[in-house]
Amino acid sequence: MSKEIPYKIYLEESEMPKQWYNVRADMKNKPAPLLNPGTHEPMTVDELSGVFCRELAEQELDDKTPYIDIPEEILSFYKMYRPSPLVRAYCLEKALGTPAKIYYKFEGNNTSGSHKLNSAIAQAYYAKKQGLKGVTTETGAGQWGTALSMACAYLGLDCKVYMVKVSYEQKPFRREVMRTYGADVTPSPSNTTNVGRKILEEFPGTTGSLGCAISEAVEVAVSSEGYRYVLGSVLSQVLLHQSVIGLESMIACDKYGIKPDMIIGCAGGGSNLGGLISPFMGRKLRGEADYQFIAVEPASCPSLTRGVYAYDFCDTGKVCPLAKMYTLGSGFIPSANHAGGLRYHGMSSVVSQLYDDGLITARSVEQTSVFEAATQFARVEGILPAPESSHAIKVAMDEALKCKETGEEKTILFGLTGTGYFDMVAYQKFNDREMSDYIPSDEELAKSISTLPKF
Amino acid sequence: MSKEIPYKIYLEESEMPKQWYNVRADMKNKPAPLLNPGTHEPMTVDELSGVFCRELAEQELDDKTPYIDIPEEILSFYKMYRPSPLVRAYCLEKALGTPAKIYYKFEGNNTSGSHKLNSAIAQAYYAKKQGLKGVTTETGAGQWGTALSMACAYLGLDCKVYMVKVSYEQKPFRREVMRTYGADVTPSPSNTTNVGRKILEEFPGTTGSLGCAISEAVEVAVSSEGYRYVLGSVLSQVLLHQSVIGLESMIACDKYGIKPDMIIGCAGGGSNLGGLISPFMGRKLRGEADYQFIAVEPASCPSLTRGVYAYDFCDTGKVCPLAKMYTLGSGFIPSANHAGGLRYHGMSSVVSQLYDDGLITARSVEQTSVFEAATQFARVEGILPAPESSHAIKVAMDEALKCKETGEEKTILFGLTGTGYFDMVAYQKFNDREMSDYIPSDEELAKSISTLPKF
Repeated sequence: MSKEIPYKIYLEESEMPKQWYNVRADMKNKPAPLLNPGTHEPMTVDELSGVFCRELAEQELDDKTPYIDIPEEILSFYKMYRPSPLVRAYCLEKALGTPAKIYYKFEGNNTSGSHKLNSAIAQAYYAKKQGLKGVTTETGAGQWGTALSMACAYLGLDCKVYMVKVSYEQKPFRREVMRTYGADVTPSPSNTTNVGRKILEEFPGTTGSLGCAISEAVEVAVSSEGYRYVLGSVLSQVLLHQSVIGLESMIACDKYGIKPDMIIGCAGGGSNLGGLISPFMGRKLRGEADYQFIAVEPASCPSLTRGVYAYDFCDTGKVCPLAKMYTLGSGFIPSANHAGGLRYHGMSSVVSQLYDDGLITARSVEQTSVFEAATQFARVEGILPAPESSHAIKVAMDEALKCKETGEEKTILFGLTGTGYFDMVAYQKFNDREMSDYIPSDEELAKSISTLPKF
Repeated sequence: MSKEIPYKIYLEESEMPKQWYNVRADMKNKPAPLLNPGTHEPMTVDELSGVFCRELAEQELDDKTPYIDIPEEILSFYKMYRPSPLVRAYCLEKALGTPAKIYYKFEGNNTSGSHKLNSAIAQAYYAKKQGLKGVTTETGAGQWGTALSMACAYLGLDCKVYMVKVSYEQKPFRREVMRTYGADVTPSPSNTTNVGRKILEEFPGTTGSLGCAISEAVEVAVSSEGYRYVLGSVLSQVLLHQSVIGLESMIACDKYGIKPDMIIGCAGGGSNLGGLISPFMGRKLRGEADYQFIAVEPASCPSLTRGVYAYDFCDTGKVCPLAKMYTLGSGFIPSANHAGGLRYHGMSSVVSQLYDDGLITARSVEQTSVFEAATQFARVEGILPAPESSHAIKVAMDEALKCKETGEEKTILFGLTGTGYFDMVAYQKFNDREMSDYIPSDEELAKSISTLPKF
């Protein structure tokens, strides 16, 4: 039975999910285990607990339990900015002249500006519960670092952020938001770690990379009393926390009889895509419903569409466990003209396995077309989207235009992960027609992929 | 009968107001009329219609009609970002250890980042309805210009924004948001107008002011075919549109049996304060309920607390009608260390009259204390507030702390007008302990007040 559908669907507090959904429990082919980089044996909870909080290490390795209770304290924090609205894009539909029905789940209505807060509060909570003093992390575009700073400020935890140097310099305002929330922000590579000093010695002029900032943050975590490392994407625990996006979406769809034909998400490390699709994928895996899932990645960092599925290093310093994933090689760094996030060389093991099993399709798009879509979206729907999120917008618009040709009334759901308020340098380039595209050559990718560990 | 109160109250679409409320209808002492700067006679609708759209000119002069229907097209646009949530500040209460109940009406969940969009869409709508090509306006901190750009993009209207030069240069990202929405942004004073050229000649190094940008925007509007001028604050029509804030708040309060003892708003030109308090003030004026209303202004621009109540020029170029208001004189420019908005020399005629009648109290606060309050609020409530809004936060916190002393369980409602994502330069100054306060001397104010027109 379908009720009259409001323009924006906000769940009632009583309807909000109380448990996260762990899609691994329903996967026949489980994601490959993390391996110890020394022994090449699967990592144990004990081993992982040196880097991560114990409960997060358990979540990381748990591929059996389908539902995990969201602790009361996290539910309280979620109430500060959730539920996020599920919005019917009436104005976009009208502008495109499409018979398709377009919905988006908007995660940008919080100061971190993105969905990252969903996992930041969870990871900070478990650190606090374990009696830790603080956490360390890396951030690139700055969404994750901001989210973690907010969560730590709320819980009274210390927060040390290694920020990719080029972003630290080009995005001083993101840095200031983190500082306002009391975080300690260091440009990476830095002289504060062994791995940082080594990288600076080897590449004196480097502007840094995510892989390098991860290495520094991990080193500080394992060498400081009372600290652990936290990560904003890629990990299975992060996808678990982000399932709140998909669960809220599914509850809202069910409540109003909305049946998505396709679900579209941008994919960098896979946290948003994995979280958005998880509960829907669960239904598909259990044979209860069918959906088309589309992962959208930048043509300049195409891990799913042009990478290989293999064990790889997660970081530049090679201090982290090995993960089996679609990857471009840990030495891959997107071209300098690449704007925004979605720049990690690999992809979540969960998303990688689902993609390898043919349960998800993937598409890559070039950034000028992404900013065109972003601008059109902003003008008709009001919200100025993050460059990352705009990858999903682009493909949602492409699919809606296909419906216009065929006359099909498909229902499209996409994840609008965040806002672009701290990305105006990129928008300015686009407005000034100074933005360009870059597609790495086969040779270039072959070279970075050749850095994969061999065993 | 009170229901269980959710953390954040979102009205259902069916509960949202369908009419604006015009507080002037219930005022015994009406605000003084706008005067023709040449004849000193009250402005007529015909005269005002050369500058404003006709329907807006009618709204400007209408002090009799209590409720005015919100056109269907505006209601549709409102649905894109309204209702705004009424939030119980549980975490702030806990952090302060106060028995007071604190609520805030949060208007920042839209790309313009503030309440300004409520009037921007209304003014753009009437311009479109009148068959105009476009509108002109000024912007200081950039919230109003962004809001108007969004509204014009949505309706397909041309939008010319004169942006105070110092903001144009220091806030390039606000400028880019406006450009992304297709607006034409010119730093003011500029060579594109007679008044701009005259001011540049007289003060070659000037970084501009709101009063000067208003003069330029008005000149372009009255001298271009198919254009009118629109203004984001001060005017009675703007307060009318902004009454949607207060109406939603009142409906939410009534629904859940919340009875505010005091209602607090920051006050620059008066648009947010006036909008928030209007329907509550209506009840007070009709003897149905009582509330304490507090207008909070910067100590560096204290029009209510240290200004005079008199007819004054609204703009530097003296091309606009004269308004009776609390004013510091049209020559007043806040000290260079003043961060954020709330920098207009005068105050809405409606708010001024209510203040003069003793129905509103006013308080001025210094900016370092405002940023302290903002930072504490951000850390516990999550939202990074605009400097303007933080004036209201500061006084709400002061009042809650008084309740802690007296043990009174007062209910405090304040307007959180917007977010500070484009104000990180000011936050950085505060974080680096480089922010200072400035209180103008009596001599300084006497000098600027001496520029009032004499008749």
